[in-house]
Amino acid sequence: MGYFRPNVEKTSGYVPGFQPKDLGVIKLNTNENPYPPSPKVMEALRSIDAERLRRYPDPLCQQFREAASEVHGIGPDHIICSNGADELLAMAVRAFCDQQRPLAYPVPTYSLYPVLGRLQDCQVVEIPFDQEFNLPARLADTGAALTIVCNPNAPSGTLVRREELASLADELKGVLLIDEAYVDFAPCDCLDLVREFENVIVLRSLSKGYSLAGLRFGYAMARPAIIEGLMKVKDSYNVDAIAALLATAAIQDQQYHRQVVEKVKAARAELTRQLRELGLHVLDSHTNFVLVNCTSRPAPQLYEGLIRMGIYVRYFDLPGLQDKLRISVGTPEQNARLVGALRELLRS
Amino acid sequence: MGYFRPNVEKTSGYVPGFQPKDLGVIKLNTNENPYPPSPKVMEALRSIDAERLRRYPDPLCQQFREAASEVHGIGPDHIICSNGADELLAMAVRAFCDQQRPLAYPVPTYSLYPVLGRLQDCQVVEIPFDQEFNLPARLADTGAALTIVCNPNAPSGTLVRREELASLADELKGVLLIDEAYVDFAPCDCLDLVREFENVIVLRSLSKGYSLAGLRFGYAMARPAIIEGLMKVKDSYNVDAIAALLATAAIQDQQYHRQVVEKVKAARAELTRQLRELGLHVLDSHTNFVLVNCTSRPAPQLYEGLIRMGIYVRYFDLPGLQDKLRISVGTPEQNARLVGALRELLRS
Repeated sequence: MGYFRPNVEKTSGYVPGFQPKDLGVIKLNTNENPYPPSPKVMEALRSIDAERLRRYPDPLCQQFREAASEVHGIGPDHIICSNGADELLAMAVRAFCDQQRPLAYPVPTYSLYPVLGRLQDCQVVEIPFDQEFNLPARLADTGAALTIVCNPNAPSGTLVRREELASLADELKGVLLIDEAYVDFAPCDCLDLVREFENVIVLRSLSKGYSLAGLRFGYAMARPAIIEGLMKVKDSYNVDAIAALLATAAIQDQQYHRQVVEKVKAARAELTRQLRELGLHVLDSHTNFVLVNCTSRPAPQLYEGLIRMGIYVRYFDLPGLQDKLRISVGTPEQNARLVGALRELLRS
Repeated sequence: MGYFRPNVEKTSGYVPGFQPKDLGVIKLNTNENPYPPSPKVMEALRSIDAERLRRYPDPLCQQFREAASEVHGIGPDHIICSNGADELLAMAVRAFCDQQRPLAYPVPTYSLYPVLGRLQDCQVVEIPFDQEFNLPARLADTGAALTIVCNPNAPSGTLVRREELASLADELKGVLLIDEAYVDFAPCDCLDLVREFENVIVLRSLSKGYSLAGLRFGYAMARPAIIEGLMKVKDSYNVDAIAALLATAAIQDQQYHRQVVEKVKAARAELTRQLRELGLHVLDSHTNFVLVNCTSRPAPQLYEGLIRMGIYVRYFDLPGLQDKLRISVGTPEQNARLVGALRELLRS
């Protein structure tokens, strides 16, 4: 007997985007927000005393649940907090899936989903998107206990309409988890499906829209019966006392949040325009990154060329993505540097 | 089909100790350290800038691994960090156990272990300790893929000798995880078994010995082959940027750590003496709590009586524990208040 379960032995684990130590580089590879978090978050950080660190935190994160309840107009009992949205994805797979209960999702999408399926040793059903990233009709017929749709999708940046997800929720016998990690940059969201359907979970993250990737804070919204079941699966003190306090300060400052989101969206529009001017094909993005089709040059060659010029973007060696680069939206200055570098690489 | 897996549906989840909101009460129910964390931790907290929150943290927590490597004299590649030691316990059960690969541990012990087994839907083998909490010989013959021994044990506070755990590690075909969450208060530890055996994991926590229960930081030490396998199971960014920095500051201040531990041990000796003077039976403790046998009164009655006097301790309605109270070691002043209250309750 090997020490590890065979499915763990076989899997290679999730590979996060490279984190360069040199702070001088332009980092457009992991979809961080280029703007700092709200000053209210920094104020909350300064207010923390030793007593808060000495004691166990509130296992339910009730303060955050109440603040999010105000923002979203949904009861605190409809909300569960997690150590990053990633932890909630892992909890959902553990709660709903096993060898008799498949996990399904359209591909290409967030590359963590297959890793979670392998770790849980459940059947995984992957249904390909079409070229325009429309929701595949077959997703309704997989018999999955858990279906995940990343919306807007990563790494395409595309958005599936609310009505289509409503139909899917209606048809599915299992749970539909809508991963809205990037929804702050989209024109609409699917939160109201939580009111309409007992099998819908909407997942949010503070990493992108609230500039708090370093804090690890996510939350999900669903009917109380679903929330209570997920609570059993979570580690009791999964969110630390500092993260809970800072996340609460962040979500309470909606004005700052909206300002930052508008700045990113404006920068995204300008970046998209400039990349298209270079002759590159860019999908319309509803996130804080763009997916660029490198028709005239191999994508890995451009990727390496950018690194040599001190600019990090993301390349996925995966089906449907091998001719593309995913580029996070930076500040206007960073985006201009990127466009200049690409122009040079395409000319040479 | 229900939405949840049947094993999740059936389980009731882990119940953490009550966290009273009133800061005026005496809280001796969840084994927090009564003394604050190192001033170096608070300095590190004050140094955090917005940039650290905006970016994703280091997925490996390399800074902490190197600091812990210095303290323990073991390579950084022998160390994995987690969001509290609880997360590492969950990771270990997910990595090693399934329906064909049992989990085993002696009982009574930390009440999270059975919850993790139920959530993983694996076979769970519980072997009772004897009255003196000696390691049960049968633990070597369970065929478990993962055997957990909490040492010193909670809630007994008792310590199994290193030599016995070495024999157990030698006999087991699966992994032996020694949960040393409380070892800072014990006269010895089992870290050197990691050098001797390829199947031993030693788990540590900063919650008790370093007064950082609010921070959620744990780490495990084992041979690199085991660490690499556990890395696949963990969420990639499982430890946030603040926790990583503060934990590093805490473990680097060994002088403060030793001072606090000595104060707690002195308070424990005095508390044990005073409780025995009241005629109560108290096991010799190697942790920051004592297990008290309430021979003359029902334990729930004393528990409720103490709450009415503003003092919280822990009562477990579990086999072998129904006549006992677990009392965390507080400051000398808090312990004196507790002893006074118990004296009053026992007299009435």
